[in-house]
Amino acid sequence: GSPIFLIAGPCQLESLDHARLMAEKIAEACAPTGTQFVFKASYDKANRSSISTQRGLGIEKGLEILGKIRDEFGVPVLTDVHEASQCATAAEVCDVLQIPAFLCRQTDLLLAAGATGKAINVKKGQFLAPWDMGNVAKKVESTGNTQIMLCDRGTSFGYNTLVTDFRGLPIMAQTGYPVIFDATHSVQQPGGQGATSGGQREFVPVLARAACAVGVSGLFIETHEDPDNAPSDGPNMVPISELGALIGQLRAFDALAKGL
Amino acid sequence: GSPIFLIAGPCQLESLDHARLMAEKIAEACAPTGTQFVFKASYDKANRSSISTQRGLGIEKGLEILGKIRDEFGVPVLTDVHEASQCATAAEVCDVLQIPAFLCRQTDLLLAAGATGKAINVKKGQFLAPWDMGNVAKKVESTGNTQIMLCDRGTSFGYNTLVTDFRGLPIMAQTGYPVIFDATHSVQQPGGQGATSGGQREFVPVLARAACAVGVSGLFIETHEDPDNAPSDGPNMVPISELGALIGQLRAFDALAKGL
Amino acid sequence: GSPIFLIAGPCQLESLDHARLMAEKIAEACAPTGTQFVFKASYDKANRSSISTQRGLGIEKGLEILGKIRDEFGVPVLTDVHEASQCATAAEVCDVLQIPAFLCRQTDLLLAAGATGKAINVKKGQFLAPWDMGNVAKKVESTGNTQIMLCDRGTSFGYNTLVTDFRGLPIMAQTGYPVIFDATHSVQQPGGQGATSGGQREFVPVLARAACAVGVSGLFIETHEDPDNAPSDGPNMVPISELGALIGQLRAFDALAKGL
Amino acid sequence: GSPIFLIAGPCQLESLDHARLMAEKIAEACAPTGTQFVFKASYDKANRSSISTQRGLGIEKGLEILGKIRDEFGVPVLTDVHEASQCATAAEVCDVLQIPAFLCRQTDLLLAAGATGKAINVKKGQFLAPWDMGNVAKKVESTGNTQIMLCDRGTSFGYNTLVTDFRGLPIMAQTGYPVIFDATHSVQQPGGQGATSGGQREFVPVLARAACAVGVSGLFIETHEDPDNAPSDGPNMVPISELGALIGQLRAFDALAKGL
Repeated sequence: GSPIFLIAGPCQLESLDHARLMAEKIAEACAPTGTQFVFKASYDKANRSSISTQRGLGIEKGLEILGKIRDEFGVPVLTDVHEASQCATAAEVCDVLQIPAFLCRQTDLLLAAGATGKAINVKKGQFLAPWDMGNVAKKVESTGNTQIMLCDRGTSFGYNTLVTDFRGLPIMAQTGYPVIFDATHSVQQPGGQGATSGGQREFVPVLARAACAVGVSGLFIETHEDPDNAPSDGPNMVPISELGALIGQLRAFDALAKGL
Repeated sequence: GSPIFLIAGPCQLESLDHARLMAEKIAEACAPTGTQFVFKASYDKANRSSISTQRGLGIEKGLEILGKIRDEFGVPVLTDVHEASQCATAAEVCDVLQIPAFLCRQTDLLLAAGATGKAINVKKGQFLAPWDMGNVAKKVESTGNTQIMLCDRGTSFGYNTLVTDFRGLPIMAQTGYPVIFDATHSVQQPGGQGATSGGQREFVPVLARAACAVGVSGLFIETHEDPDNAPSDGPNMVPISELGALIGQLRAFDALAKGL
Repeated sequence: GSPIFLIAGPCQLESLDHARLMAEKIAEACAPTGTQFVFKASYDKANRSSISTQRGLGIEKGLEILGKIRDEFGVPVLTDVHEASQCATAAEVCDVLQIPAFLCRQTDLLLAAGATGKAINVKKGQFLAPWDMGNVAKKVESTGNTQIMLCDRGTSFGYNTLVTDFRGLPIMAQTGYPVIFDATHSVQQPGGQGATSGGQREFVPVLARAACAVGVSGLFIETHEDPDNAPSDGPNMVPISELGALIGQLRAFDALAKGL
Repeated sequence: GSPIFLIAGPCQLESLDHARLMAEKIAEACAPTGTQFVFKASYDKANRSSISTQRGLGIEKGLEILGKIRDEFGVPVLTDVHEASQCATAAEVCDVLQIPAFLCRQTDLLLAAGATGKAINVKKGQFLAPWDMGNVAKKVESTGNTQIMLCDRGTSFGYNTLVTDFRGLPIMAQTGYPVIFDATHSVQQPGGQGATSGGQREFVPVLARAACAVGVSGLFIETHEDPDNAPSDGPNMVPISELGALIGQLRAFDALAKGL
């Protein structure tokens, strides 16, 4: 196996300057261990709990920023897409298109994403079993695109709570595709604060260590320089100041798991 | 309160002749009790478990058939929409637009549906708590459209299984909007047959009686003349031959619950 | 079928005077509809959330009170047993021995209870599927005692929450034994208040109506003249002043379900 | 921190010879890493799914065997107790008394176990949240005994399935007591084979690695020389021939997690 790579960035794009700051800090956090990273940010939070919260910069402005990050930092960039019509546009800039968990069974979106030829990261729906993701992958495969990643971000467990079933990681890996563990959304408490989601940031390192010990290809971690004031997903994002130490720790567990 | 109404029809549109047969049989089943019904059918099964199963007739052909049913039978018609761009088109023909459960947090879809001015039936996501639906309704309300219905179709309970929490019906009713109980999808076993979903048709009357005793505005029931050979959702659809007796039974429970 | 009967009483025995008051009020609540009832109370709360809460009067004093209620009111009495050695003693006074949900797989307790020849009410464990109760019943049957009732009091659903799966009632009825719905523990929030359990009293009538519409042999309802100050289970007990109206309502749903 | 220790043995005592074989093989598996182990076996399977399966040798014969293992191998021994009256007897031989998950809220059992002064290993009920175990520990503490271990063996997740929430390990550790991860019961499928429980032996190493990465004081692993023909819990026991390699692997993750 290869060492884990990272998909990291702020939950949503805030501005070019903010994206640059994030990319720079993530690069610094990854440097000591030589960890590869994909820069992740959303141009649109298309399914927030409430209408009264911020959605983001929009696709045009968002992709412009992602393109600059890609060029300036020489890193692949990822964004999530929400309707089939957005895929081709996002693919002009992005190296990886991400299918949100709620949308992981939307056939048209999967086909349009697959048809771009870009790598596709599909989040497992909170309502799906890990073995259901094989059928999801086959939808993308049907376009001839086999650059597929399957990502676990937790499973519904009662109300307003997710649980991570770590058996799911090797089960999804049976598809032959790389498996990613989304360590920050897995500690989200959906709708847990009424009009926004809560989160348990303190458990990100706990679950991420577990994932590396089980064995994954990559980790997805949202991060921010000031999570408590971030426009979305603050309660579950990792402060950027703690990212470097976390990566170091996770690389050690990954190396042990993979015999690197 | 008013007596329950029915949203009924086959899971997917198969042909004009089939839709006519269904509408005729549903009308017959509703006649003895004078039950009002909305004819429901999908022009596209946009999120099926597997790529290898049938999706449907498409929006153009589908709406043409729904329009004919509407005219010939004098009943309102409902279809589900999957992307924002479909809403205005569907609204040209349909009286009710339905938001699928997986898509119930997609802001653009809710706004586009709301903006048509048509009645909107939003299915509660299997991943949401009943109290989370207030925020969903507010997204539609923000368009000025308050013709909203909230529909329960079960909640994730372990893998490949749903459970109906009947506390959810009065909780959703606290929004002030009519609450619908989807008696056929609530007994679905998502992904329970590998490449398709399973279902427990035998529990439809059980849960529907419970919903009427708890108190609902309407019931959603998919039905087919030959469910075992239907192109989708066969395991959970009610045979049309049993629909009349079921409605009669449910109207009695509804009347008792509402003191009619 | 026969009309539903009631298992009712306070969660725990407080004193002879209190038990008399409860029995009298329950009798009054049942009289208008001629509803049969079994008087229920615990001599020991053997598995409370916390060591710092009240356990009750103990087996000797408790059985003495239950015996007096039985004689004075001419009603059968029920109590729960917690260890095999208590069964024969409790059976000297009680008509029904109840197996608590946590203990529903304890073979010795089931065998000792069965061996008394008394009726046995087994609560389904919150951790069991309804179809698992067939094996539980067979343990009691192995003693030659087939006076068995199976009782649903909710199933674990995430943390500190129960959900009632109404499919479970007909599934348990397939054993051939009477099925009871425990309407007050089904709305318990186990451990939901830290050192004690919370509850949602307002949903007792909701779930009880649903159970009657689905079809049950009996209902289990804990009641108190002042639930907010009761020594245990206050948040989910029904105020005795509301019991009569509730029974009237439930008998109507039961009659409709059974065609009485 | 100290390196993890092991609680290991067959699910149930079969004979003195079998116990000796198991103890010898476990000792061999532990020797290369110098891993301390507690020999575990049950004299009575008191809550099996079905009455028709084997319960074990009984307390007298069972304790005699455990005493011999203790003397011959110089290891501490553990057994589970099911009623308060068994605690003092079991404590004459055993170093650790274990409270089964279903019984973890039975106050009398916890008090009787605590009163022996022996170490107490309490399994978290499948129906409890990890934070509920603080109240459980306080029941034992109230006897003056603070030699307490809290053990996670999975949480109810839908029917016939458990899930391990790894957030629960650090949450239980907040009590200050050592936390044990039960790697074999966590992959049990309760009642999953009708009259017996199923299991997913292949996931034992997966979840055990995760637990070590998260950080635990010890691991509980049931093992057998021929699990497929073991009298109970075969589907989730680890073949003894694989135990040594597993321990080696787990010690490495443990050392990394604890900086040993």
